[in-house]
Amino acid sequence: MKKIRLTIEYNGTNYQGWQTQRSGLTIQDIISKMLIGIAKEQIYLTGASRTDAGVHALGQVAVFKTDSRLPADTIRRALNAKLPNDIRVLAAEEVDFEFHPRYRAVKKSYFYLIEKTQKQSVFFQPYAWRIPVDLDIGSMNMAASVFQGEHDFSSFRGSGCGAKTTVRTIFSISLSRHAYLDFMTARMQGDFLIIRIEANAFLRHMARNIVGTLVEVGKGKISSHTVVDILTARDRKLAGPTAPAKGLFLERIFY
Amino acid sequence: MKKIRLTIEYNGTNYQGWQTQRSGLTIQDIISKMLIGIAKEQIYLTGASRTDAGVHALGQVAVFKTDSRLPADTIRRALNAKLPNDIRVLAAEEVDFEFHPRYRAVKKSYFYLIEKTQKQSVFFQPYAWRIPVDLDIGSMNMAASVFQGEHDFSSFRGSGCGAKTTVRTIFSISLSRHAYLDFMTARMQGDFLIIRIEANAFLRHMARNIVGTLVEVGKGKISSHTVVDILTARDRKLAGPTAPAKGLFLERIFY
Repeated sequence: MKKIRLTIEYNGTNYQGWQTQRSGLTIQDIISKMLIGIAKEQIYLTGASRTDAGVHALGQVAVFKTDSRLPADTIRRALNAKLPNDIRVLAAEEVDFEFHPRYRAVKKSYFYLIEKTQKQSVFFQPYAWRIPVDLDIGSMNMAASVFQGEHDFSSFRGSGCGAKTTVRTIFSISLSRHAYLDFMTARMQGDFLIIRIEANAFLRHMARNIVGTLVEVGKGKISSHTVVDILTARDRKLAGPTAPAKGLFLERIFY
Repeated sequence: MKKIRLTIEYNGTNYQGWQTQRSGLTIQDIISKMLIGIAKEQIYLTGASRTDAGVHALGQVAVFKTDSRLPADTIRRALNAKLPNDIRVLAAEEVDFEFHPRYRAVKKSYFYLIEKTQKQSVFFQPYAWRIPVDLDIGSMNMAASVFQGEHDFSSFRGSGCGAKTTVRTIFSISLSRHAYLDFMTARMQGDFLIIRIEANAFLRHMARNIVGTLVEVGKGKISSHTVVDILTARDRKLAGPTAPAKGLFLERIFY
């Protein structure tokens, strides 16, 4: 028996998130099914982050135990040969039995993509929230700094969150803007805002609720000075709306 | 009664191409259905190019006649409100009844995307053919020049092509390489080759068969000097394989 850790990239567009649900296809479902076919035994896959339906990942981490004698990298290649094109196993390695992808994580990094455009390309629309107006980045930066550090994030917790404590530590929130060379038209274009959040862990919808609130600040609908009041009120009703899932990427989990 | 011209962008990944098929969902099917709902009458939509299953478009053109009194731009907005996110109507305008999207076209531009990478991102894999090896661009350019001008393209015609004549004029084939700023990681990355083909019209699979042949030249499997023999032989068996649909984009139709 050994324990194998997978690092997984996926386009979440066509899935009901990572975690197995009562209905709808999830990424965990698909990988588990493929693993059972490869290892020829029952497999239970444990993921590090329960990404929501439509959320993407560049570095989800999951583990499973197996009696299979196949080397980890053989399992990776067998998975990639069977998985649909929107899910890819980047790495597979044997880990010690004590390793747990969620409890052992010391930091998680998510980023969120916002595209300022009147008309979003069908090719990039699954990956960014379209906001057609100018956002006040200065105010958003001021508001973002409020979230840094250890806080009770109850005001930013989605309903149905099963976490025992609502205290989390955000190590950093950074905003950066990017034009990019559109590889299809070979022209510089795009006005992207990337909001990257690094924390020890996230409550349900926390990243999307923080982004939704920052966007309200950027639009001038919420003053950056009141964000501290929203945070300390511990009342979900005061914060901004939940940003759409499609703009969110689980970037990396640090151990 | 009036005639309206639509300019349409789509991600072809999830469709069986433009043209209505015996089975499977097509882009024509979806737009026609939406138009019938909006105009409240039977609508017959005529497209300029029958893009294959999986082929994308930045500027497909289609027309329909209607007795609806709605202005063209109102129809455009109504369509975009109903269409799935991977199909978007960029423009709608009234045209004279003589206008036909295929017969009136004087030039069509397609481009094909090849990504050189050992490991293709799940986010870009629907839009580019992954080729992990170096291609000899010099030889490919020499071979590309053979195709320019008026030729019988029988050697590059896919089976099932219903065209009456196999003579077409290629105005230009150009190859260009691009790195791009990955907007998700804010790093320069990627090694893309874009092959753009402008012609008066295309036979079935002609663009993909030309690309497939150029790639064989780039790999050294076909000598650039033998491409002229392949072209003049009028024998499909001599040319290279059909490049995958997912890398092909109908860029623009000129009138």
